[in-house]
Amino acid sequence: MVHSPITLTQALIGVEFIATIAFALSGLLEAARKRLDAVGVVVVAGLTAFGGGTLRDVLLDRRPFFWVDHAAWLWALLAMCMAAMAFMRARHFAVTERAMMWPDAVGLGLFTASGTQVALANDMPALVAVLMGVVTATFGGVLRDIVCNEIPSAFRDHRPYAVCAFIGGWAVVAASRLQAPEWVVLVTAAALTTGLRALALITGFKLPEWRVGKGDR
Amino acid sequence: MVHSPITLTQALIGVEFIATIAFALSGLLEAARKRLDAVGVVVVAGLTAFGGGTLRDVLLDRRPFFWVDHAAWLWALLAMCMAAMAFMRARHFAVTERAMMWPDAVGLGLFTASGTQVALANDMPALVAVLMGVVTATFGGVLRDIVCNEIPSAFRDHRPYAVCAFIGGWAVVAASRLQAPEWVVLVTAAALTTGLRALALITGFKLPEWRVGKGDR
Amino acid sequence: MVHSPITLTQALIGVEFIATIAFALSGLLEAARKRLDAVGVVVVAGLTAFGGGTLRDVLLDRRPFFWVDHAAWLWALLAMCMAAMAFMRARHFAVTERAMMWPDAVGLGLFTASGTQVALANDMPALVAVLMGVVTATFGGVLRDIVCNEIPSAFRDHRPYAVCAFIGGWAVVAASRLQAPEWVVLVTAAALTTGLRALALITGFKLPEWRVGKGDR
Repeated sequence: MVHSPITLTQALIGVEFIATIAFALSGLLEAARKRLDAVGVVVVAGLTAFGGGTLRDVLLDRRPFFWVDHAAWLWALLAMCMAAMAFMRARHFAVTERAMMWPDAVGLGLFTASGTQVALANDMPALVAVLMGVVTATFGGVLRDIVCNEIPSAFRDHRPYAVCAFIGGWAVVAASRLQAPEWVVLVTAAALTTGLRALALITGFKLPEWRVGKGDR
Repeated sequence: MVHSPITLTQALIGVEFIATIAFALSGLLEAARKRLDAVGVVVVAGLTAFGGGTLRDVLLDRRPFFWVDHAAWLWALLAMCMAAMAFMRARHFAVTERAMMWPDAVGLGLFTASGTQVALANDMPALVAVLMGVVTATFGGVLRDIVCNEIPSAFRDHRPYAVCAFIGGWAVVAASRLQAPEWVVLVTAAALTTGLRALALITGFKLPEWRVGKGDR
Repeated sequence: MVHSPITLTQALIGVEFIATIAFALSGLLEAARKRLDAVGVVVVAGLTAFGGGTLRDVLLDRRPFFWVDHAAWLWALLAMCMAAMAFMRARHFAVTERAMMWPDAVGLGLFTASGTQVALANDMPALVAVLMGVVTATFGGVLRDIVCNEIPSAFRDHRPYAVCAFIGGWAVVAASRLQAPEWVVLVTAAALTTGLRALALITGFKLPEWRVGKGDR
């Protein structure tokens, strides 16, 4: 049987719901900044929220997708976009972005943990499973940036984001090897990933630069 | 059994052929404007014509693709691109674009209707089936714009395009629920979608703006 | 049984390893030029090296992917990127790029030949199989350029690249029809493709221009 985030406890579903909203909101803000129309806002918000998990499922050849089994989430997304377009003003953007940083970190943790678990349950080797976790957590944002004609911020931001997911994915692999119960694996790895991301945000830690100095150019 | 556009009447195949050509031409013009080489012209024209249906089939895990079963269409596409590169001049572009607006609207209608039907036949829930119809009709153009390094015009044009497809998709769902014969479903929904698009083009109707006023910035 | 590049002789595996490295390096250089961070460098290098074959396998609905069966290649890629970031300086870039032109041509040949063979073994019609060979050989670079927010150089460079792959793919089809042994098919087609690419590089041959003259504009 395939492990789905939905078999987890109700509490986790609630957290995941908030995380998905945070991802969708980041797409929505980016779309607004690019002055997209209503269609663009909805599509980019949806891509950001569901794109990572969908790409993972295409790569793993898993069906049905999460949003096919739970089409209610698509309605929620539509409603959220309509509400945002009606009530949100430009001056809300910066505030929203700062406020969303923390649910986004939670989403990073949860999607990393559940994405890696799903891949392990599909008999992927450890490194591939970890990469699938990273893809689940980060490729929504990558697709958002590609559609908005930007280089994905996950690839040029220098603040650890995918790296936190990568480490968290290995925590899933390690805990699974130790035969920890599934919810322990999930909570531990999600907490580790989210914690690392929060630490990076608080300390302003930067990934090592490619050492292309001025004298080199 | 999976319903394929090809099981429809000969007349519809003829219309669909013209619509596919219109989609391919829009890719070809965009590629020419971007000064792509012969390879780029062929690839972008092909992506625009077949990209939407192919993405739908990847998401639905359906094989073989339309263009695998009917490789003759690929040859037709190649021939069309070669002919266009030999005979088409820049002064033809604007004329062609205006002339293509109407077959493009027909294509929008047909691909929406057939895409939604295919998804319903694959047991998708209503909203997902409608989204698959929208994807079939619009993602060729989205891929064209991404490859040409533009924000997809379907997301920033403010003239209803995907919205017409969305409404037309619901017409497919409604007519199917009423147990209308398949060709009635297809013709009704395609006509509705194309009609809405034509109306939008004629009246210059714009989607509601994201209300980010100057004072807001 | 599906023919995999890995069933080929050890010599070919060695050559393919070098070709994959060349593809990864081209991604790495592009990522460095765009000042991506460590994550971006690894992802873009990986996309360039494995993206073409992965897209082919998604289109053919083939699993597992090459890099799932041989996760060691992913470790090699990670190690290479780390080494490059530690030791490579900007002044090495131009040199590396020129030096990589030839392994890249070898990679073009090998991936075209093996990609077309795989598609033929999956019962694709001839033209589709050839296109799959072209996709295998060129779409890694296309994805690299899309992620780096450039129009893919394969579509605007005017130097034959995909065209060499297209011709080489037909050599695979022809040789397979003549019932040549598999390794003869592979070596002949790869040599033809690589030879054409080398010839194009040496002679500076350009694809015919789209004839949009100045007077036309």
